[in-house]
Formats: sequence, C-alpha cells, structure tokens
Amino acid sequence: MHDLVSLTAVGSIAFDSVSTPFGERERMLGGSAVHFALAASFFTTVHVVGPVGDDFGEEHVELLSSRGVDVTDIERVAGGQTFYWRGHYAADLNVAHTDDTQLGVFADFEPKLSEASSRAEGLFLGNIQPDLQRRVRAQCEWARLTALDSMNLWINTTRDSLIAAVGEVDCVLLNDAEVRMLTEEPNLARAARALMDIGPRIVVAKRGEYGAVLFTADTSFALPGFLLEDVRDPTGAGDSFAGGFLGYLDMQGTERLSDAALRRALAYGTVLASFNVEAFGTERVARLTEPEIAERYEQLRAMTHFELGD
Amino acid sequence: MHDLVSLTAVGSIAFDSVSTPFGERERMLGGSAVHFALAASFFTTVHVVGPVGDDFGEEHVELLSSRGVDVTDIERVAGGQTFYWRGHYAADLNVAHTDDTQLGVFADFEPKLSEASSRAEGLFLGNIQPDLQRRVRAQCEWARLTALDSMNLWINTTRDSLIAAVGEVDCVLLNDAEVRMLTEEPNLARAARALMDIGPRIVVAKRGEYGAVLFTADTSFALPGFLLEDVRDPTGAGDSFAGGFLGYLDMQGTERLSDAALRRALAYGTVLASFNVEAFGTERVARLTEPEIAERYEQLRAMTHFELGD
Repeated sequence: MHDLVSLTAVGSIAFDSVSTPFGERERMLGGSAVHFALAASFFTTVHVVGPVGDDFGEEHVELLSSRGVDVTDIERVAGGQTFYWRGHYAADLNVAHTDDTQLGVFADFEPKLSEASSRAEGLFLGNIQPDLQRRVRAQCEWARLTALDSMNLWINTTRDSLIAAVGEVDCVLLNDAEVRMLTEEPNLARAARALMDIGPRIVVAKRGEYGAVLFTADTSFALPGFLLEDVRDPTGAGDSFAGGFLGYLDMQGTERLSDAALRRALAYGTVLASFNVEAFGTERVARLTEPEIAERYEQLRAMTHFELGD
Repeated sequence: MHDLVSLTAVGSIAFDSVSTPFGERERMLGGSAVHFALAASFFTTVHVVGPVGDDFGEEHVELLSSRGVDVTDIERVAGGQTFYWRGHYAADLNVAHTDDTQLGVFADFEPKLSEASSRAEGLFLGNIQPDLQRRVRAQCEWARLTALDSMNLWINTTRDSLIAAVGEVDCVLLNDAEVRMLTEEPNLARAARALMDIGPRIVVAKRGEYGAVLFTADTSFALPGFLLEDVRDPTGAGDSFAGGFLGYLDMQGTERLSDAALRRALAYGTVLASFNVEAFGTERVARLTEPEIAERYEQLRAMTHFELGD
C-alpha cells in the first residue's frame, strides 16, 4: 500500500513494563511514536523523530526498519536512558494506572528534524509536552495534514501551551473525557465544536473499547470498537488508532479530506487499535499482515452495517 | 405503522421525581412499562400490565390510550399508592443515583393477564422482581418473541430466580456491565455467549450514550449512541430503547428474527432512546411523530455508514 507521500511522527520511544489481568511484560518496546509508526507503516512511509538512550537495542531499531519506517531521526543520546513507563490495568482495561515514569533522554530533548522529516506531507505530534509539539510543528511548514494527541496531564499542567498547539494543527485526537476536560464542556458534540473553534478542522474523540467519533464542520461519524473475545493489553491502542487513521489519510493524497476518506480512515484506525490490544505492547502489530487488516476492515463493516428500508 | 400483531409489556408504572444538571421534575409519569409502551406504540399495539394507586391520574391513562396502547390490564388498587422513584444525576448522566424507592401497590402485585394480553405474539418483561417476570411469562404461552430486562439489584439479591427467568425468554436486554456481572465474565462478547448458553437466542447489551451491541449465535452487531447536543434526562432511555427494538420486531411478523430485521430493530431502539433523553421523563416521546423517527433513523445510518474499497 506504500505511496510516495510520507508522514513524520514525533513522540515517545519507550520501554514499558506493563501488568494486566492477562499477564505482564518487563521493559518491552513501546511509546507513542513507536505504536503510531508500526500501525501507519501499513499505509505510508513514516519518519520517526525522538531520542533514545544507550540501553535501546539495535533489534528495536531493526523492527521499525523492517516495516519500512525511516529511523534517521531516532537520536541516540550517549550516556542516556530511554524513556521508561511502568503501569498496570485492573479488571477495567479502559483505565491505565501509572506506577512510574522516568523521562530519561526526553528531559532534555530538543527536536531537530532532518530534511526528509521536515518535508513530509503528514505530521503526527504524539503525546508529549505541548511546547515540544509546537517546536516540531514549526519545522514542518510543508505538512498538509497535521495532527496531535495529548493527555490529561498536559491539560492540567500546561493548558495554555496545549491550546496554542491545538490552534496550529488540522486535526486533534483525544480521549472523549479529554475533549470535555480541555473545553470545559460536558457534552461531547458541543465540546468538539468548541475545539474546532480554536482551529482544527477535524476532531477525533477516542472512546476506548466503545470506539471513536469523528467531527468536522459538515459531519459527525461514530464507530463502536471492534468486538474482541481476547483483550490482553490496551497500552498503545490510541497511538495505533492514530497510526491507522493518519496513515490511511496520508496515502489518499489530495483526496485525504473527503468525507468518505475520513470515515474509512476512522475504520482503519479502529482496526489497527483492535489488533494492538490483542497482545502485549507491539507484539501483535509487529507480526500483522495487510490481508489481516483488509479482512478485519470488512468484518468491522459487517459488524456495524444496517440497511434503510421499512 | 400498526399491524394486527401485538405486544404485552409488564413492568413498573410509576411516578418519578428526577433532578439532573439541566432541571428537575416532581412526580412525573414514568416506569419501565410506560416508557416501553410509548416507544413501542409507534410500531405495534401494546398491552400494558401493572398496578397503580388511587393517586394515578386519568390523564396519564389517556396519554397511553391516545397512543393506541391497550390499558385494560392497568389495575387500579383502591387505597394504594403508585410506585414511586426519586433519583438524581450528576455531570455523568450515565450513572443514576437512587434517593428513594416506594413500592406502593407493587409490593403485593399478582399479575393476572386478560385474554388479549396473554395471547399477544410479543412479550416484554420489564425490570421487576424476576419471580414476577416468570409468573407473567407462564401466562403467555402464545408469545413467539419474549424478552426481559433486569438490573444489578436482582443480580445481587435474587440471582437464581433471574437465571431461571433468563432461561425462559428468547431475548435478554441488559446494560453491558450487568451482562458481565450476571455471567461473572469480564469480556462482553464471551459474557453474551454465556447468557445464550442459558437459553436466549438474542442478547442485547446496552451501553448508555455509547450505544448498544446485539449478539446472536450467528452475528455481532454494534451501534454507537445517536450523538446529541442536548441531553436532559436519561431516565427511561433503556425502556424506550427496548420499546423501539421489540416494537419494530413485532411488526415484522415472521421475518422478525432475520439478521437484517434485528439490525434495523437495534437502530430503531437507538433512535427511540435518543428522543427519550432529550427531555424529562416521557415528555419528548409523548409528542414524538413517525416522520421524526424516520428522519432520525436515516440520520443514524448516515452517522454510522462507511464504504468498503479504498
């Protein structure tokens, strides 16, 4: 499915230690840029931007390269430690409990994009400090479709910076509770309109297992999550969702903002997120195939389709 | 849309005092049988079965009659008090907080169905004590499509009776958390299969504003909730959903259990629930029209439809 267009992704490149009712893993590959890039790699070429420490193994870089991801802008910081997150999930897999976060090399990260990264047509600003997102955004003047993700931490601690960052992108992807929190509007549809008033043309509200909603000035489109009998680890699902969504739009070229393309993109995001949660970390998406994506896309449509008529 | 078939509904006929962030009402008409009957009345003839007290006004009976509802089996108990519920909702309208419940005439209710009620082709056992549901079920041997709703109270206090009642119906409608609780299975798709193993051919998991999922042996079908900018009172939404769902199936006659009909029924349930929450109690559905239902059904399809092909 590769095209000549490409997509730059900045965000965390991490080691995650995760425990869920279905098992646990220590220091597995993770991070928003990694989950995003693996998912988007089925649709377009992704340039990953972010720092790692001496502890980051060559096998992790190779996993990304093997999926066609451009790793030129993965910056290895001598003497540094890779970003580290430890968390767990109880019976409700919709809620992540953070037990430890170590910024490591991210504490002093100053993004400097290569020419290939800065000239990409698409840009994904993963969930990092909003001023960092803005400094990356400023280096991507060619980007025709820019998007950001964020989290409650930045809404609470750096709200003004986040609002400024939102004002500089075409698309915002947030959890539905975060859309409400950021706009201080309890109704999701109204909250999405309030976000669009700040600048973005597209607002995607992610609802975990309940799916996602897409809002533009002209349309509202909602999908339930793909129903699965085995869910093991939701870590990274939101970034895999964003990777499927933006990766698909990137390969559409100039048609990327049509209503039909946006709907299909939301469906591909839903599909990629559903694979993400079937195994720990990147395990499932790393071994995913294009036929599996196509098959589940059809299953998702069958699971949500109904006819008009009496 | 009326047909010759009909549907019997047993459940509470109540006065509700409700407070939400958008207003409050004292002693308005409510109850599971009432919300169900008003919603289903757009599709079929409903026989309402249940007791009321001296305090139940003729205007409430007339509201039901004016929608074509058969009120013969609304039993007026001399000296009795109509079932009363007081509750409130905070910012999260998905969670009802009960402040008072007075069973009144429901404490000694012994259902005796008229011939018309007992010969109906459809039966809805609204959320009441499961042994009462079973006694009504036993009087409806002609029913070809039987369904029940319940709640966490009965799962916790009369679990064995509820399991027995579930085993005697074709269709169960429960909140998704209740499906998980009743089966002690945290995964919704597995929990729905566990319920089907008890007897029902159809399981509908209601998810509040997030929509609903339908499971049969052959299919899974999920819809998001209809996106609204104004939600005032969710009381009765689950019963309006059931009324739209079962009312539509009832008017299908022998085609009622086709996959296409079940999907359309879930969409009509979603539509009726969406009108329910736009105003307090029965206010919105009481003034609803068939063209409004048809219009919103089309809007729901537009809001959830996407195409195959890239």
